[in-house]
Amino acid sequence: MPNWTIDLNADLGEGAGFDQELIPLLSSANIACGFHAGNPHLMQESVKMCAEHQVHIGAHPSFPDTWGFGRREMHCSSAEIVDYILYQLGAIAAFCRANRVKLWHVKPHGAIYNMAGKDKDIAAAIALAIKLYDNSLIVFAQPGSMLATVSTEMGLKVVHEVFADRAYNLDGSLVSRKLPNSVLHDAVEVVERTLKMVCDQEVITYTGQPLKLSSETVCLHGDNPAAIRLARSIREGLQQAGVTVQAPQ
Amino acid sequence: MPNWTIDLNADLGEGAGFDQELIPLLSSANIACGFHAGNPHLMQESVKMCAEHQVHIGAHPSFPDTWGFGRREMHCSSAEIVDYILYQLGAIAAFCRANRVKLWHVKPHGAIYNMAGKDKDIAAAIALAIKLYDNSLIVFAQPGSMLATVSTEMGLKVVHEVFADRAYNLDGSLVSRKLPNSVLHDAVEVVERTLKMVCDQEVITYTGQPLKLSSETVCLHGDNPAAIRLARSIREGLQQAGVTVQAPQ
Amino acid sequence: MPNWTIDLNADLGEGAGFDQELIPLLSSANIACGFHAGNPHLMQESVKMCAEHQVHIGAHPSFPDTWGFGRREMHCSSAEIVDYILYQLGAIAAFCRANRVKLWHVKPHGAIYNMAGKDKDIAAAIALAIKLYDNSLIVFAQPGSMLATVSTEMGLKVVHEVFADRAYNLDGSLVSRKLPNSVLHDAVEVVERTLKMVCDQEVITYTGQPLKLSSETVCLHGDNPAAIRLARSIREGLQQAGVTVQAPQ
Amino acid sequence: MPNWTIDLNADLGEGAGFDQELIPLLSSANIACGFHAGNPHLMQESVKMCAEHQVHIGAHPSFPDTWGFGRREMHCSSAEIVDYILYQLGAIAAFCRANRVKLWHVKPHGAIYNMAGKDKDIAAAIALAIKLYDNSLIVFAQPGSMLATVSTEMGLKVVHEVFADRAYNLDGSLVSRKLPNSVLHDAVEVVERTLKMVCDQEVITYTGQPLKLSSETVCLHGDNPAAIRLARSIREGLQQAGVTVQAPQ
Repeated sequence: MPNWTIDLNADLGEGAGFDQELIPLLSSANIACGFHAGNPHLMQESVKMCAEHQVHIGAHPSFPDTWGFGRREMHCSSAEIVDYILYQLGAIAAFCRANRVKLWHVKPHGAIYNMAGKDKDIAAAIALAIKLYDNSLIVFAQPGSMLATVSTEMGLKVVHEVFADRAYNLDGSLVSRKLPNSVLHDAVEVVERTLKMVCDQEVITYTGQPLKLSSETVCLHGDNPAAIRLARSIREGLQQAGVTVQAPQ
Repeated sequence: MPNWTIDLNADLGEGAGFDQELIPLLSSANIACGFHAGNPHLMQESVKMCAEHQVHIGAHPSFPDTWGFGRREMHCSSAEIVDYILYQLGAIAAFCRANRVKLWHVKPHGAIYNMAGKDKDIAAAIALAIKLYDNSLIVFAQPGSMLATVSTEMGLKVVHEVFADRAYNLDGSLVSRKLPNSVLHDAVEVVERTLKMVCDQEVITYTGQPLKLSSETVCLHGDNPAAIRLARSIREGLQQAGVTVQAPQ
Repeated sequence: MPNWTIDLNADLGEGAGFDQELIPLLSSANIACGFHAGNPHLMQESVKMCAEHQVHIGAHPSFPDTWGFGRREMHCSSAEIVDYILYQLGAIAAFCRANRVKLWHVKPHGAIYNMAGKDKDIAAAIALAIKLYDNSLIVFAQPGSMLATVSTEMGLKVVHEVFADRAYNLDGSLVSRKLPNSVLHDAVEVVERTLKMVCDQEVITYTGQPLKLSSETVCLHGDNPAAIRLARSIREGLQQAGVTVQAPQ
Repeated sequence: MPNWTIDLNADLGEGAGFDQELIPLLSSANIACGFHAGNPHLMQESVKMCAEHQVHIGAHPSFPDTWGFGRREMHCSSAEIVDYILYQLGAIAAFCRANRVKLWHVKPHGAIYNMAGKDKDIAAAIALAIKLYDNSLIVFAQPGSMLATVSTEMGLKVVHEVFADRAYNLDGSLVSRKLPNSVLHDAVEVVERTLKMVCDQEVITYTGQPLKLSSETVCLHGDNPAAIRLARSIREGLQQAGVTVQAPQ
């Protein structure tokens, strides 16, 4: 039996109200930095909670768009994006430093994450900011995304992120939420699917074909009670299958 | 002749539009961090400008009050103040790091600076945040202020700041702006007064008596053309008197 | 049996997530205007919900302090307070207008509500803004508060607000939340107390003496499931006692 | 000689510092509502200044993007745009109401103005918000723009806006600022050009051909001393040519 390991990550400090139930399930947490959600108080609290549970802390930077929760495309220049990422990295790192823990990774949020998956300029601006700030930070990016490619080219360590409850297209992109069955809700199916991604590095796509998919961290959701239950099922399913949950080093 | 030195500091990146004229006059700059003024773009620009002119960079943190320019008292808890200072220190430090320059000092802005001069809890919250973040940072504080006392007690290096164009009370506090002649405008008088503070560590108070005043950095203003002219007079007056302008180490 | 009527009000559109359960219990709703909570989308949604349930809409203006949820004292000038109230009144009124419903009342939020209870300048600034904007708007204020007095003097209609679950001092002020038993949780006790306030216009104070208290609207809370349950008990208790729940006209 | 009249408009309350010099040159002012610039204090001040100079007041709504001065495209839903326009209309209207003056028109700002020129959904969302709020408000829009078309279709009054100092393409769109000579600086040329637009309703395009252009309001700029001088030249040139400067009724 191979020595499977996986990272389980989720977004923290976004004010959804379930962070305390979510955190014991995680090995990595992406903390909102005040641009799409969160604020200095929530950041402090989230960092303390991660420190207590030995969960690795990452930045979860966004476009400056509180009202839209960072989910709306904004057309910023590369220089502006560099500035936004630097500002947010520094802000979250300050709370890490004050709590004597390390900032481990960066996972962009929402629209900027999606845009960086396809747009080379945006991906490069994000990677440049990370590199300028601390080139030991790990970039969380979708396998096959522009962000993964560019970050690797710039010498940054990349960890590939997959989604347990989302349908995939054959090119590795996510099926639009507007299509039926693009989001999976059945716990048994989601756990099975996750195990396949983790152990076989493969997913069955929306149209039925298998797709090889580098799967190093699985994104859990925790913004409602049902999401928490699903996240718990995934964690338990992985452990029962002998998969070790641990953050990337 | 003694070997006089003085630091000249001013606030930068607040959007007043005169930063380029102001910066050659300075040895230290306090950069707004987005809470009372400034934003990631202005911070990047200000840090680059300081790096180019070899001006030492400091954080200029504030209460979160853009509409009031950080000049209004806010009653925050100590924990909230720690969080605000940490957030802003981290944010400005990120731009320093990206530009390969050092963050040297912290000068709180507006209402929080004034409150920290008198309120022990606020002073202690600021000093604690600085200490937790980087205990080598220098605190700019008025001589005799609670912020100076508490920061020293907590092992932080303090640099005493004086104001060239403001009348002083006998207890070392500034005369309220609401009183006549509380702000000086005559360049000759201001320069003379500055020289006395720098070389004799003394100021003639509002009521005529001399007051000993630890004077290690002089605050210049640069938010309008007249202020720039006055700042230039001070810099030239100091240099003609043989005073070396340099940032504290 | 007298013809008792009472208004039941609560804060809406603050993002707590229970608005749909809360709204059927209300006759008046105070909608956050984006300064302490809320945003244009939530305002639109809240106004539509009120229109549907025939709940009277009021503005719930605050200091501009999202991170502190408007609960921190800010020392603003009277002119600044007038500007903040006007801005928020106009904003919420626009959604009323677009939905063809009336804006009925104004209930200041958090720190500005508490400060206006005691500080004449702040109370007058709020009342002035309301009067300038629309002198038919009803002011919600605590009985005996400076806001009630000043608003009445300026010719505005005042509706007196009481709190079902808070202990009262003999002078009509609320017992500080820091003291034991300042907040009541037992549904039976709270309902009984509410009935006494509504039907007898009297409350038993913290120290046991009865106090006459003008009670025209009762504030319900709805930011957590327990609060919703308590609010439901109050509504039901009032109706069972033959009290008609209706908004002030 | 025909009875020529023209409206001269400019943006006010954006903090550029030249509003007092600009306002005597205007018949209409577009006041920033806090989304790209401005705040309740500046809005109050701007409305008072307009009331004093009998300048017609309009709303100048924007995307919520202070850091980008509303100049960056944001991909919002139609519903979100309706909400943003309503909120801003209500806010500025409150200051008008408090000062007993009328809100006359709406001129969208920056990116949302440009997008509404081409995108039917955005134009329709803006026009819908205006119609819902007050269908007597006049829409300022470029001749031939989608915003002009849609607003007219929805029964709103449209006033066509032209730019005195910008080069035009043959289709009536503005030549990109990135191209040489897209912005004109010579006062004599700009005044001549404006007269031609006002009196002949015609402009010579970038490529030399004449283009008929409905010109009912001319946009002046006032964010720097040179812009103020140019604006003054335009006003004087128009008056010397016998053109009456007045706001649309």
